[in-house]
This record gives sequence, C-alpha cells and structure tokens, in this order.
Amino acid sequence: MPKVTSEYRAERRAHIMAAARRCFVRDGFHAASMQDLVEEAGMSSGAMYRYFASKDAVIEAIAVDNLDQVVAVLARAIGDGASPQAAIAAVLEFVTMRHGDDGFAAIAVLVWSEALRNPALAGHLRGAIATALVTLSGNAHAAPDGVVDGTCTDEDAHGDATALADVLLCVLPGYLMRLALGGSEAVANIPDAVEKVLTV
Amino acid sequence: MPKVTSEYRAERRAHIMAAARRCFVRDGFHAASMQDLVEEAGMSSGAMYRYFASKDAVIEAIAVDNLDQVVAVLARAIGDGASPQAAIAAVLEFVTMRHGDDGFAAIAVLVWSEALRNPALAGHLRGAIATALVTLSGNAHAAPDGVVDGTCTDEDAHGDATALADVLLCVLPGYLMRLALGGSEAVANIPDAVEKVLTV
Repeated sequence: MPKVTSEYRAERRAHIMAAARRCFVRDGFHAASMQDLVEEAGMSSGAMYRYFASKDAVIEAIAVDNLDQVVAVLARAIGDGASPQAAIAAVLEFVTMRHGDDGFAAIAVLVWSEALRNPALAGHLRGAIATALVTLSGNAHAAPDGVVDGTCTDEDAHGDATALADVLLCVLPGYLMRLALGGSEAVANIPDAVEKVLTV
Repeated sequence: MPKVTSEYRAERRAHIMAAARRCFVRDGFHAASMQDLVEEAGMSSGAMYRYFASKDAVIEAIAVDNLDQVVAVLARAIGDGASPQAAIAAVLEFVTMRHGDDGFAAIAVLVWSEALRNPALAGHLRGAIATALVTLSGNAHAAPDGVVDGTCTDEDAHGDATALADVLLCVLPGYLMRLALGGSEAVANIPDAVEKVLTV
C-alpha cells in the first residue's frame, strides 16, 4: 500500500474511532447502533464498512488502542527509572487527562462489562494486565505460574515486587471506575496518595 | 403488615433477586428481559410485578444489596479493631466467596457500567464509597470537602489515613474487575499482598 494511502486509512480509522467514542460515552455500547456511528462520523455506511466490519470491531479497536496506550505509558515511566508507584501515578494522570478529552474511563468500564461476554475483549484485557504485571514487577516470572529462581532473599524481593505490582494493578482499574463515576474531582488526591501509602 | 406476610414477601424478593442474578451473570443487563427473570424465578408475570415494577427496579435492589453487604463487612472488621488494610482484605475474601456463589464481581462490573447512564445506581455507588471512606479513615471529615481540625500532627495523621482509605477504595473495585475477568485464581495472592505492601 502506498504510504499516503496507508496514512489516509489510519487517519480515517482514527476519525471513526473518535466519533464512536463519543457515541459510546453518550449512549453505551448497546444503545449506540452502527448507523449512529456512521452519522456521528459524518460519512456513508459504505465508507464506514470499508474500515470496520461491525460495531464489535470498532469496540475492539478502541479497547486495544486504550490498553496499548496505558501499557506504553507504564513502560515508558519504568524505562525512565520511575518506581512502580510513580509509574502507576503517571498512568493515573494520563488516564485522567484522556478522560477529560474523550471519556476514557467510561469507555474502560463499558469494555470490562462487555468483556464478560466477549472473549476477544477479555483476552485483550488479560493480556494487558499480564504485560503490565511483568513491567511493574520488573520480573518475567511475575505470572502466577512463574518459576522463582535465586536465593531466599531474592525470593523475598521477588515476592514484594510481585505483591506491589498486583496491588497497583488493582488500583488502576479501581481508579478508572471512580473516575468514570465521580469525575476528576472525586479522584484528585489519589495519584499522590498512591506514592504516599505504598512505600515498599 | 403481619409478620408472617412480611417474612414471606422478603423471602419471595430474595428468591426473585437470586433468579435475576443468574440471568444477569449469564446474559448481561441488556439481553436479559423481565420475561427471562419471570421464567428463571419460576413464577407468573403477575406475581413478579407485585414485587418489582421493572427490570431496573430489580437491578437497583441487587446493587443496593451488594453495596450494603460490602459496607457491612467493612464496618464489622473496623469495629472489631482491624486495620484498614486488614478490613479491605476481609472484604476481598468476602466478595471472592460471594463471586463463587452468585457471580458477585460480574454483577458489580455490570452495575458500574449501568451507573454511567442510571443516576439512581450512580447515587448508590457514590454513597457507598463515601460511607466506606469514612469507615476506613476513621474520620467523618474524610470527604474531599471536609474541614480538617487539630494540630499539624493531627493533620498529617488525618492525611495519611485519608490517603490510605482512598487507595484501598481503588483496590476494591479494581480487585472486583480482575475477579470478574480472571476468576478467583487470578486474584488469589492479592488479599495478602494488600496487607504486605500497605504499611502506613
């Protein structure tokens, strides 16, 4: 595909996904129809279907985009030398900014609910959580079935790092739920609180 | 109302709510119809409508029941002298047990999603979070607009207690999301991890 066409397609996809986010935040996944998405995007049905075969395909693309962004912010913070707590605090600030732009936290809550009956979405969420656990714990053995090597002291440190990562990866979805429910004012103190009370 | 009638009505309501939980966990709030609930409960439509005027009324009753139970477990643990961390760990164990019985965590995720467009549900969730914040921080001024009295030291202790409560009340919904998504094995280490890494 020529570069200009590839760039054009990426821009059109992003345009459709932005329109779909607005529809979903306003109406939820079930009440918003593919026709609503078409109208919000200001394009023809035929054009829309050249990019997404179904509403579910749009939902999956948005979920993957959101998860990829969260994982990228986390990886960048850890790569820059941040502590796991500071890295999660950076993610909390990122999602708060994004929520103000396009209802990021509301989309997250809708995706979790949809994932209960959509194995593809559930797989993407589980994959992102597994990647984030490894990134945060700094340990490729962070998965529950991982093999722990090393001395007793290493095992303790490994256990602490895994425990911290596991708790931080509850804080993030819990924060998203409270942000979606109460808005940014309801969660304003939490990024600092995470760094204050998690001192491992 | 005579006591026997009142007890009978409470039993029938509980029976309907249990049937409705099964429908909702299986199909979600949107796909499950009032007729599905009637059939799952094994009663007539007429009988059902004497207890609940609508599917939304059943959803609200289930949400309130779940939230009341969580707040009660938390209050009992704190009343028994548990630390905030230990009290949340007790709640995590309670919801895990309940999830095995009736899909408690899946219902929670469905309720959050529904609360985005249902102000009554959103109000119940906000109320439960506010109550839990006060219970956990041991401070009636835990709300964001609370007035802080006392010396500087008291303010610091107040700030720490509020920060801890705020983080713990992210851990709980995040844990419910991960339990709904991954089942009890995915979250098995988290109650202990909460007590290990939150040492304020």
